[in-house]
Amino acid sequence: MPAEPSQRVTPVILCGGAGTRLWPLSRAARPKQMLVLAGGGSMLAQTAARVSEAGLFQPPVVVAGAAQAADVEAELPGLGTLILEPMGRNTAPAIALAAIEAEADDLLLVLPSDQLVQDAAGFRAAVARAIPAALDGWVVTFGMKAERAETGYGYVERGAALSDGVYAVAQFVEKPDAATAEAYVAGGRHDWNGGIFLFRADVMIAALERFAPEVLAAARAALSAATREGARVRPEAAAFGAAPSVSIDYAVMEKADKVAVVPVSVGWSDIGSWEALHIVTDKDDEGNVVVGPGMALDAKGCLIRSEGPMVTAIGVEDLVIVATGDAVLVVPRSRSQEVKDMVDALRLEGLDQWL
Amino acid sequence: MPAEPSQRVTPVILCGGAGTRLWPLSRAARPKQMLVLAGGGSMLAQTAARVSEAGLFQPPVVVAGAAQAADVEAELPGLGTLILEPMGRNTAPAIALAAIEAEADDLLLVLPSDQLVQDAAGFRAAVARAIPAALDGWVVTFGMKAERAETGYGYVERGAALSDGVYAVAQFVEKPDAATAEAYVAGGRHDWNGGIFLFRADVMIAALERFAPEVLAAARAALSAATREGARVRPEAAAFGAAPSVSIDYAVMEKADKVAVVPVSVGWSDIGSWEALHIVTDKDDEGNVVVGPGMALDAKGCLIRSEGPMVTAIGVEDLVIVATGDAVLVVPRSRSQEVKDMVDALRLEGLDQWL
Repeated sequence: MPAEPSQRVTPVILCGGAGTRLWPLSRAARPKQMLVLAGGGSMLAQTAARVSEAGLFQPPVVVAGAAQAADVEAELPGLGTLILEPMGRNTAPAIALAAIEAEADDLLLVLPSDQLVQDAAGFRAAVARAIPAALDGWVVTFGMKAERAETGYGYVERGAALSDGVYAVAQFVEKPDAATAEAYVAGGRHDWNGGIFLFRADVMIAALERFAPEVLAAARAALSAATREGARVRPEAAAFGAAPSVSIDYAVMEKADKVAVVPVSVGWSDIGSWEALHIVTDKDDEGNVVVGPGMALDAKGCLIRSEGPMVTAIGVEDLVIVATGDAVLVVPRSRSQEVKDMVDALRLEGLDQWL
Repeated sequence: MPAEPSQRVTPVILCGGAGTRLWPLSRAARPKQMLVLAGGGSMLAQTAARVSEAGLFQPPVVVAGAAQAADVEAELPGLGTLILEPMGRNTAPAIALAAIEAEADDLLLVLPSDQLVQDAAGFRAAVARAIPAALDGWVVTFGMKAERAETGYGYVERGAALSDGVYAVAQFVEKPDAATAEAYVAGGRHDWNGGIFLFRADVMIAALERFAPEVLAAARAALSAATREGARVRPEAAAFGAAPSVSIDYAVMEKADKVAVVPVSVGWSDIGSWEALHIVTDKDDEGNVVVGPGMALDAKGCLIRSEGPMVTAIGVEDLVIVATGDAVLVVPRSRSQEVKDMVDALRLEGLDQWL
């Protein structure tokens, strides 16, 4: 059932992340959402395209770092508003900015800018299904089908059914241990928390007022002193900097009363590591993925990716090998999460030219 | 005992090799002998320095590919003669050129240009020790102490002692199987054949006349029509091209009667693979060698080498990771010999820009 025009949804695309876990491809000046990782176009462009059906969506609001302004505009010609954060303050202040800028009864769909959804139509159908609950004052999260016992994700547990395919949230669980994650996958009542939320702007503002008043106050002050030029909105830096750096999950979702979950199975991935990228990419008969100039001899299960150099591998298994013009990474797929340790180590050594 | 001036030795440095086994560092336009791999300076410069003691050695003769002329002259300001082969024809024709160019009673010391000798003084002492046998008409090879059961090398077996530290050769054995190589190392009568030979020019010419007359005839014809300019000698191409492509081992050493061996233990390595380079290089506490911009986290036994890119490795063991400005190689150290298969594969795919 298509939504009525009065129920159209405004996508709020959060574009502030850095994505050090995909180093050396992701860099300070080229964060993950600007990369072409899977499918056509950058993660950001794919995210915007996913929520661009005119009958259902308004033009998107993007919240990005000030340094990303030109890149975002180049990627998204159909941009509605571009809110440029003077500094990163995690998701709660970013969402507060978007909620304050909106009309009170606008429906906002918050989306990270760096996720993959293979079934975009299925995703849009789920958004449409969530609209009545959001109009009724629920903050709706989308529960991604837990396809394996990931210990790096947050999980959301379904409680009582509110309507067809919409459930009250029983609880959120952050990064469970392996046994707990196994039990969640086996039990079938837990989904991954994908960080995608649908809510009425005034509902979120009320929740922030109650659970994170400092966040709301800082965002309001920063916007009242903002400079505006075309689609660009620049919140005032000192005021925004007063906001605590806190996630929307911690600030609101885990505390609010009316939180619902719409479980979906739409081929979602946050591509949060090289291993995650290997999982969602088509592989050859040996389980290898080779992107860019590369050649593998007697290699199995490898992710080989090059931005230029000829990358060659002989007789290795389950390795990630990534080369850019100025850096190379070699790590077992199973240890992909440790890439951030390498980024930390490079920073510690003052090797910022490679960050 | 220093040699008398009349017994001085002319080094003949063979500079024609390509060294595909050290790809991607060694390239068609930058063969192994031009690389700085271990110790100070290129392999070629170190080879020349090793045989530059004026009391013992004349200025060297270098036999190189025509394309290498400027590079060789830049590396070796003290060059005697530079014989520029119009095409590669393996070692027998190269040595024939040098022998014909020499005086009949000159002592020639043939050396590959791409080997490491850690004890240069010990090596020179061995050369001095071999001079009487060479003057007496023996072709002397230097037997490198077999430090492990290498199956990729040729071995030389000692026969009867001719004098202190000089033996008649019982036999040459090419690339034995692993069990045979083990037996050789345990037995103590076999050395590696390092491809370094000392002989009188007229003795070599007589041996070529007898065992490889086509080689000698082609070299003579090519030199009689050679063009000469300063130190450069350019044998005539069509005549030289008529020489069969054959090694001096196969053409002469394995057939001649008076072949002697002087066993030495001078820290020799042909650095014929990345594994061989790892063996001769100082390692850190984890057994890693890192040359150039690189960082290893929880890695063991790795050879990491970069000509520019920051090369990083996490959680890997016994890997070779080599990066140049335009290519990357990842291979287990134990499979270093297969690098030439990769070079072949790239050639087969027409990817010559990386060769």
